[in-house]
Amino acid sequence: MIKRLCIFGVGLIGGSLAMALRKAGYCDSIIGCSRQESHLQQARALGVIDEYTTDPATAIHQADIIFLSVPLGAIRGLLEQIRDVLPPDAILTDGGSAKTCVKQAAEAVFGELPPRFILGHPIAGREKSGVDAAIDSLYQQRKVILTPTQTTDKRALATVTEMWQATGAQVNQLGVQEHDQVLAATSHLPHILAFQLVSTLANSSITENIFDYAAGGFEDFTRIASSDPVMWRDICLQNKTAILDRVDAFEASLSQLKAAIQNEEADAILATFTDAKEARDRAMKVR
Amino acid sequence: MIKRLCIFGVGLIGGSLAMALRKAGYCDSIIGCSRQESHLQQARALGVIDEYTTDPATAIHQADIIFLSVPLGAIRGLLEQIRDVLPPDAILTDGGSAKTCVKQAAEAVFGELPPRFILGHPIAGREKSGVDAAIDSLYQQRKVILTPTQTTDKRALATVTEMWQATGAQVNQLGVQEHDQVLAATSHLPHILAFQLVSTLANSSITENIFDYAAGGFEDFTRIASSDPVMWRDICLQNKTAILDRVDAFEASLSQLKAAIQNEEADAILATFTDAKEARDRAMKVR
Repeated sequence: MIKRLCIFGVGLIGGSLAMALRKAGYCDSIIGCSRQESHLQQARALGVIDEYTTDPATAIHQADIIFLSVPLGAIRGLLEQIRDVLPPDAILTDGGSAKTCVKQAAEAVFGELPPRFILGHPIAGREKSGVDAAIDSLYQQRKVILTPTQTTDKRALATVTEMWQATGAQVNQLGVQEHDQVLAATSHLPHILAFQLVSTLANSSITENIFDYAAGGFEDFTRIASSDPVMWRDICLQNKTAILDRVDAFEASLSQLKAAIQNEEADAILATFTDAKEARDRAMKVR
Repeated sequence: MIKRLCIFGVGLIGGSLAMALRKAGYCDSIIGCSRQESHLQQARALGVIDEYTTDPATAIHQADIIFLSVPLGAIRGLLEQIRDVLPPDAILTDGGSAKTCVKQAAEAVFGELPPRFILGHPIAGREKSGVDAAIDSLYQQRKVILTPTQTTDKRALATVTEMWQATGAQVNQLGVQEHDQVLAATSHLPHILAFQLVSTLANSSITENIFDYAAGGFEDFTRIASSDPVMWRDICLQNKTAILDRVDAFEASLSQLKAAIQNEEADAILATFTDAKEARDRAMKVR
């Protein structure tokens, strides 16, 4: 049970956490904090938070859990603002899509990653963003990855684990770097490819209204290109190393496939496609 | 109205056409033909076709419309088998995903593209294939592209247009080459990227069970990687030129984005993503 939850950045991720915990009866009071008061007014009007403030020091007063769901690029500045007023027994945790950069931001501000700062990442999202897209079921049957280190406080880790379990999520642990590589592969690269595909197509001169000829597969394939551009810019900058590794690997394998098409190597093309279909069907348990 | 429809290749595309026309009461009798008798038996058991034969010459006897939905690589061989027994007033049409190659196959077999051969392509599909995936609503509110040439018989074109309209489809016309470029951009490239992404991921050594960490966006993004590998191999071989053009264009723009990430050019990254989001939201009319 949480007495007082403080959420920085009450958008899709933070708002959905608030709604899920409230629905589960897991939280007595929720205070939101943001630089944009209009977002906070909207969140309170929607009943997502009980109260709000634009002052970080006021927000964290008496909070037992402080959840950071601001853009990755804003984490360090926020930590600097709250460092000197952090309640000694408060637990910090976050929902950022990359973890090395958050760890480094914390180290820069606190000198080390505080033992009660639990780095986390709920693997959930929608193509819509903002608090009006928040839903209390966002985390149900979704994975939340926590990335504890050797110095992590075990009780704080257990508390954050239980908080996420209360939303219906399944909590897993990965190493900080491992998390960033896994997410670069399963999430960041796909988003980059989808954004890039749509952008290339929109700027092509093949025909007018080219999107009119896109079938259902295209709609699914590009859904993630409707995601929040600012968030994804930040992810590209903050998980740069792992993302560039995955883009390189993808380019190399695309180049091989291109050569196979160029040389009409029917068996090589078929092997790649069959491999992919089998892997996806297995992964998604398509029947 | 069609008296006798002959369908070569009674899978998802041919089977769904048969079911839609039957439901619309647009067709008196439907005969299926394939090299694989078991597929035909299944199609008849499902009520998709009235009768079947594995002999092409028998199949086209007294047919007013002959629909070819065999793999692109099999079209030329099939045309050779029926050339000398084609009823003089029969209309030929097809559902192949690329049109230049079908036109060339017809020219090779007949000396020229027969005026009553209407090249066509229904922009519809599912990730499942085979006649058991066929549904009578597959073409409803979908686009069917016909690619007539200067020598196309206008009445035959009108007949095939009406046939597709009877399935609930909207019929558009494009040039043969334009069709192939448009589809390479909107369909073939996305499929190649999805297959390649899943294949790269399946063969990566980042972590065990990497697909466990894939979120909903990944499932949507890779749905088309569960498509029929043989069909997509054929499309790569048969629409090679247009596809390689699009892969080249995509590689060039991905390379630019990679450089922007490498150099941390925040504005350039944001511009690409914003461009893509706006284009997609406009195209798909996301609210």
